[in-house]
Amino acid sequence: MRRLAQTLAKRALQAKSRASSSSSAAAAPCLTHTPSSTTTKAPAMSPNSPQEANGSKRNLSSSIVWSPPITVDNINPQVLACEYAVRGEIVAHAERLQHKLLHNPSTLPFNELIYCNIGNPQSLGQQPITFFREVAALCDYPGLLDKDETHGIFSSDSIARAEKIINSIPGRATGAYSHSKGVKALRATIAEGIERRDGYPSDPEDIFLTDGASPGVHMMMQLTIRNQQDGIMCPIPQYPLYSASIALHDGTLVPYYLDESTGWGLDVSELKSRLQAATAAGINVRALVVINPGNPTGQVLSEQNQQSIVQFCKDENLLLLADEVYQENVYVDNKKFTSFKKIARSMGYTEKDFSLVSFHSISKGYYGECGRRGGYMEVTGLDSEVKDQIYKVASVNLCSNISGQIMMSLVMNPPKVGDESFELYTNERDGILSSLGRRAKMLAEALNKLEGVTCNEAEGAMYLFPRIELPEGAIKAAKAAGMVPDTFYCRRLLDATGIVVVPGSGFRQVPGTWHFRITILPPEDKMPSIITKLSTFHERFMQEFQP
Amino acid sequence: MRRLAQTLAKRALQAKSRASSSSSAAAAPCLTHTPSSTTTKAPAMSPNSPQEANGSKRNLSSSIVWSPPITVDNINPQVLACEYAVRGEIVAHAERLQHKLLHNPSTLPFNELIYCNIGNPQSLGQQPITFFREVAALCDYPGLLDKDETHGIFSSDSIARAEKIINSIPGRATGAYSHSKGVKALRATIAEGIERRDGYPSDPEDIFLTDGASPGVHMMMQLTIRNQQDGIMCPIPQYPLYSASIALHDGTLVPYYLDESTGWGLDVSELKSRLQAATAAGINVRALVVINPGNPTGQVLSEQNQQSIVQFCKDENLLLLADEVYQENVYVDNKKFTSFKKIARSMGYTEKDFSLVSFHSISKGYYGECGRRGGYMEVTGLDSEVKDQIYKVASVNLCSNISGQIMMSLVMNPPKVGDESFELYTNERDGILSSLGRRAKMLAEALNKLEGVTCNEAEGAMYLFPRIELPEGAIKAAKAAGMVPDTFYCRRLLDATGIVVVPGSGFRQVPGTWHFRITILPPEDKMPSIITKLSTFHERFMQEFQP
Repeated sequence: MRRLAQTLAKRALQAKSRASSSSSAAAAPCLTHTPSSTTTKAPAMSPNSPQEANGSKRNLSSSIVWSPPITVDNINPQVLACEYAVRGEIVAHAERLQHKLLHNPSTLPFNELIYCNIGNPQSLGQQPITFFREVAALCDYPGLLDKDETHGIFSSDSIARAEKIINSIPGRATGAYSHSKGVKALRATIAEGIERRDGYPSDPEDIFLTDGASPGVHMMMQLTIRNQQDGIMCPIPQYPLYSASIALHDGTLVPYYLDESTGWGLDVSELKSRLQAATAAGINVRALVVINPGNPTGQVLSEQNQQSIVQFCKDENLLLLADEVYQENVYVDNKKFTSFKKIARSMGYTEKDFSLVSFHSISKGYYGECGRRGGYMEVTGLDSEVKDQIYKVASVNLCSNISGQIMMSLVMNPPKVGDESFELYTNERDGILSSLGRRAKMLAEALNKLEGVTCNEAEGAMYLFPRIELPEGAIKAAKAAGMVPDTFYCRRLLDATGIVVVPGSGFRQVPGTWHFRITILPPEDKMPSIITKLSTFHERFMQEFQP
Repeated sequence: MRRLAQTLAKRALQAKSRASSSSSAAAAPCLTHTPSSTTTKAPAMSPNSPQEANGSKRNLSSSIVWSPPITVDNINPQVLACEYAVRGEIVAHAERLQHKLLHNPSTLPFNELIYCNIGNPQSLGQQPITFFREVAALCDYPGLLDKDETHGIFSSDSIARAEKIINSIPGRATGAYSHSKGVKALRATIAEGIERRDGYPSDPEDIFLTDGASPGVHMMMQLTIRNQQDGIMCPIPQYPLYSASIALHDGTLVPYYLDESTGWGLDVSELKSRLQAATAAGINVRALVVINPGNPTGQVLSEQNQQSIVQFCKDENLLLLADEVYQENVYVDNKKFTSFKKIARSMGYTEKDFSLVSFHSISKGYYGECGRRGGYMEVTGLDSEVKDQIYKVASVNLCSNISGQIMMSLVMNPPKVGDESFELYTNERDGILSSLGRRAKMLAEALNKLEGVTCNEAEGAMYLFPRIELPEGAIKAAKAAGMVPDTFYCRRLLDATGIVVVPGSGFRQVPGTWHFRITILPPEDKMPSIITKLSTFHERFMQEFQP
């Protein structure tokens, strides 16, 4: 697997150099292709057959072995270069094991796969919030609102909310494309929610509703990155959406390292020196990504720390891209989530002198509605001309899905005291969040007991990112198997226990250190057995490779 | 408005040349920025203040007027170059009029806007199919399945279908991320539907579920286009998703013209000569887009014509991208829809010797579920390595929305004879389709009666694309107003009647000809009054500019 990845990466580099050489020939009326383009892979054709990797050779005779016009040797090298470990090679292997479990279970030492690779709470049994789903069903099938039986099986506030939402959609058309930014009334509800959260104004015209947070991030990368000289600063470790999106848009990821020894602290002197180095290397750093609460690292930034980040972006005139999708996931008493917008406004920076995009989503929090694909970005401190360009790009895809838009508005305006659903809603929410907090603690404690493992507490988000001191023998064995050492560890863990985690290398890390990311999402009653499996595996692994 | 567009396009070109000059300097350790980058727009700063368009100048003093790091002068030029007329300047003007109508209605000569710019049936009153929405509601709120009242208000087959779908989702988790291609069982249902339609096998592993058809098109463009020398053949007139996506991915659109005089016929000799010309100009043509039934042109291709297109792609080793989203929208007795896959297979071409991607969507047909954003692409005749790359890119965004996935499976497997919903479903479907046919005919006849207007029949899809012979005076007036002539006509139509249509120039057209696209979607009972408004406007317009 790793070898394939290396081969592909090599091809990507070769293709890239081909692409840039053809780019420099752009002005020439006719391109001559370098014959090297066919040398990366032996052509599956007879020796005398004509072939060009770009598929431009015409009139292929049908008697020779056919090669499709688009192959892995001639696709966009940026696609090849993109990596997304959260659903990468370990997960692909887990899918093969899943298949084996179905057809040949006796060959495996476990009877189920435990997917701890991805923040996908409902896949591990978390139940959706009843009020949210009631409103979703009523909006999907508005005919229910005219039926008597509906009052017996839906809460009164879900009926009232659904009616309000349906009436706010032009023509009550819940199946129509909305405005490309999203239904105006839903954006207004979301802006009000942001105002309640921050105590500062929010303009519905700054809200772009998206299918989850990811498309918003892609749109901003597409807007910001012009070529490989454009740099985006990202925390390391980072959520690989960022590295993937930067690769797809052919920009440069400028890393800044979080300090594991201080609970993944973010030091502004680190930002400064990394920016300086990038600038000296000819990179135009244009934006800075912050993930708070952190993914995969789980830290919650202090307000003071946030202030210095804002000041840094202000001083350096960088666009601040704030990934705040875990804003409801804070598990420690001494920390709370504060939005970067609130921080900036409280420092006196406004729409007129500070550029900030904040991303949010319905996939995380206590709701975990990943599959519904809802999200928004709030774009502030950019010219209306630029917002018009974002709107134009959003228009090409028409709009985000209306169910996701509705759910996002519910998340930003849940039931209130006095509403029929309030008690149930509060119980469901608090039940989920307090259990997540307990699971985070339980798992971190267990990890810290393992030989050679240190793990910072998850103050927030949904993950732990333990560091493993791998024995020299394990590193050698990994090399022999053609794997990165932490991938080797994760692969062994998977094969032995069915537990799926993501190697730290997929998030990037300080060179020479090894980690993995594990979600805190398995059901609380299963946690002890997962911990036992993990601990037993780890002990044996260390024994096997101990000198 | 047009002037702004021209200015922006000019800037895009300037930015493009800047970008390519910096790209050629890629190997140099440090870039020197050409001072010309600041000359496109007078900087809104004091004369002696430092500024670089790329935002890399650090430590801006806060005493000077602030310029955001990202401005329209320094964003990705590909974003600037992208145009999407379906929600372009005419629609932006319509939104301003909508606002005026709300706050100052007496200043306008109409009392409502009639949005004929976009294929958005439910926004104009088309009702959703009951069975589809019943299943959607039950899947949204599975708790309903346990309640007695549910059997009184939902059809038995919607309950059975919802149960089947929910049980087929791993962990019954309708709120979880699915596999990045989509829920496996839903892909299997869709593949079965394709098999029933075509009579040839379909593999669920070839199905990628998407948020509408557009993201699938983007993914294929992203995969295929490496640089400006890569060309994609597109019909002219075309649906502007294609030109927009090619611009965003920095490729070259290679046009082939449909022949208006033969009902928008597609002539293979035209394909050949355009391919030849493009190849001679150094373009590597990699794929060919066909839209069938046609958008904006409404023609339904004959099987013979489809065969010659397949043969052309086979001979030239091009990837065929078949936009088949209007496959259920055929209104004439002498034509029917046949998929390109069926054509290719019936010619003896298989997975092993022909590359084809077919796009479908829940937004069109008789269902018109635009806002739910569901779609799929079926990828055949590409190596598994390439499919893995598509899967990887899909993974970065995790999955398409589950409600849209479910709806796509319903569209491909609607109620059958014997199901409780069958009669209602059939009535709803046939009612919508036959009405659309009548509306298409009515509108085409009316347009053909207008002076200087000729309009091909809509055999399928949702649009008419009439040609207007604009008087010389109108063309001069348009120029004086800084507008493209057909935009000028559409703007005048909008200002006079509130009818929103899209200028032909937004779809591209034979130079010197002028068209507009109008949907056939307004309710049937409103059609006569819309025709009267349109005819009266047209008459006056022609009078005004007649010599």
